[in-house]
Amino acid sequence: MPGTKLKSYLSRKSTLIERALKACLPKDNSLISRAMRYSVFAGGKRLRPFLVLEGAKLCGLYSKDVLSAACAIELVHTYSLIHDDLPAMDNDDLRRGMPTSHKQFNEAVAILAGDALLTYAFELLAKPALRDKQHSANISKAIWLLAEAAGPKGMILGQIQDTIEAKNWLVKNPAENKKTLQLIHLNKTSKLIEASLLMGAALAGAERYKEHALGVYGRNIGLAFQITDDILDLTGNKKLLGKKGSDLKNQKLTYPALYGLNKSRNIAKDLINAAKRSINVFGEASEYLKLLADYILERQY
Amino acid sequence: MPGTKLKSYLSRKSTLIERALKACLPKDNSLISRAMRYSVFAGGKRLRPFLVLEGAKLCGLYSKDVLSAACAIELVHTYSLIHDDLPAMDNDDLRRGMPTSHKQFNEAVAILAGDALLTYAFELLAKPALRDKQHSANISKAIWLLAEAAGPKGMILGQIQDTIEAKNWLVKNPAENKKTLQLIHLNKTSKLIEASLLMGAALAGAERYKEHALGVYGRNIGLAFQITDDILDLTGNKKLLGKKGSDLKNQKLTYPALYGLNKSRNIAKDLINAAKRSINVFGEASEYLKLLADYILERQY
Repeated sequence: MPGTKLKSYLSRKSTLIERALKACLPKDNSLISRAMRYSVFAGGKRLRPFLVLEGAKLCGLYSKDVLSAACAIELVHTYSLIHDDLPAMDNDDLRRGMPTSHKQFNEAVAILAGDALLTYAFELLAKPALRDKQHSANISKAIWLLAEAAGPKGMILGQIQDTIEAKNWLVKNPAENKKTLQLIHLNKTSKLIEASLLMGAALAGAERYKEHALGVYGRNIGLAFQITDDILDLTGNKKLLGKKGSDLKNQKLTYPALYGLNKSRNIAKDLINAAKRSINVFGEASEYLKLLADYILERQY
Repeated sequence: MPGTKLKSYLSRKSTLIERALKACLPKDNSLISRAMRYSVFAGGKRLRPFLVLEGAKLCGLYSKDVLSAACAIELVHTYSLIHDDLPAMDNDDLRRGMPTSHKQFNEAVAILAGDALLTYAFELLAKPALRDKQHSANISKAIWLLAEAAGPKGMILGQIQDTIEAKNWLVKNPAENKKTLQLIHLNKTSKLIEASLLMGAALAGAERYKEHALGVYGRNIGLAFQITDDILDLTGNKKLLGKKGSDLKNQKLTYPALYGLNKSRNIAKDLINAAKRSINVFGEASEYLKLLADYILERQY
């Protein structure tokens, strides 16, 4: 659990985010709308939307002005989980303790619900520009950041490396594997986390040095987040995690498999320290992002 | 085959479009890049990009200024075909006479290649706004139009109705089926065709009445296009079409199944006439869109 101060802050922001997610998703009873809502509201830490809000705040913009963008990135994250869980990919039956989309509905619905969430994210992001032409340059930049991070040079590349190419890792040499694994984690996880912060900054029209500081923070906590994920898959409480540890079963390339548990924990710790250093430029305002960075290291699920 | 005049015009525009598609797609040898290129260059009439160019031209913008948008909509169209062909959906082995993506690669790659093309389309669309802030309002509008048309109230809704909900059509009454079928075709095909023209208009910053005229044209030729598709699935030359007629096998709701062949042809003809009337506002400049409308009715593949 996060410390009291961070916890109450996260909980206040979570209320905003949950309310915005409810308001932005289609409310009708059609199959596609139900499937979209099912996966978005199947839990989740709302880390990425929180980072959009916090990135914007550090660059001078209120939460209410970036809630659409915060929702958009959570929808993109949710789509990636739905497709990741499909039988042709990781073939997982459970996610956050609940049946995955293709188990709850069926495979066709799960594919289309993922597609719908991804597409709808861009609709949500672009919509405010129809009224607010003055900010359309910032909005277009946020759209570009999200698409670039989620696309074939970012998350999807990481996904394909993780699902398909990493299956050959046992036959390769250790040095090569370490490079490959870092690249997979950066692409698969860090890019979208970095984009969350950068989208907040872009919407606020932030100066270059602020973008840079948030980018470094995002890349580092993203990689640390994925390393703790690898560790928890091996050591964590399956009940708390809401899923079976499947990396071993799938013979996946992970930090513990390559470095051992202790070294993996130390690498994550170094990354978290680098992340915290980089946001010193924001002074005291960076307090919550620093608490969050520490929490990522200590989380149990 | 289209008439000589239209044919040579289409062929000039096609050269531009093919060149732009080659230039915009990743050129590296990674699996995801190869899979993206495979499906985009597996043929295709390039109808949607042509409509972006023509919509822009009628509203005063040169082809070169909308080529990114033209490519973007073709990538979205291609993604929809890849996912549509998947085993969990229509389960087609052939598309345009070539193995479908999941046959050429595998299911995981096909899912991710579709995801990548969809995401990359928005990256392409948003990118010019990073330099050209002056036009970012028009660009954001084009992004919104594409996302809205391709999303859960548009193409994906049509897809889910077509793949899943339309399977119950045999037990329903004919009047209800006719309404359902029109809605499916409008969502599944017309919306993206309409969006192509509207994106061209939006990028040109067109007046409302021009948008309206192009929208009516797009909706009508889109529906007519899908009706002739239904007809060709039943009567067309399989070799020219490059696929097996699968609607009958899949017991799909189609215009010929509900109205018979003759009535279906007449409905399509009426739609084409309505489309041509609506673009009279552009005077002689609308000539090629009118020739295209006629061709849609007469096409053999």
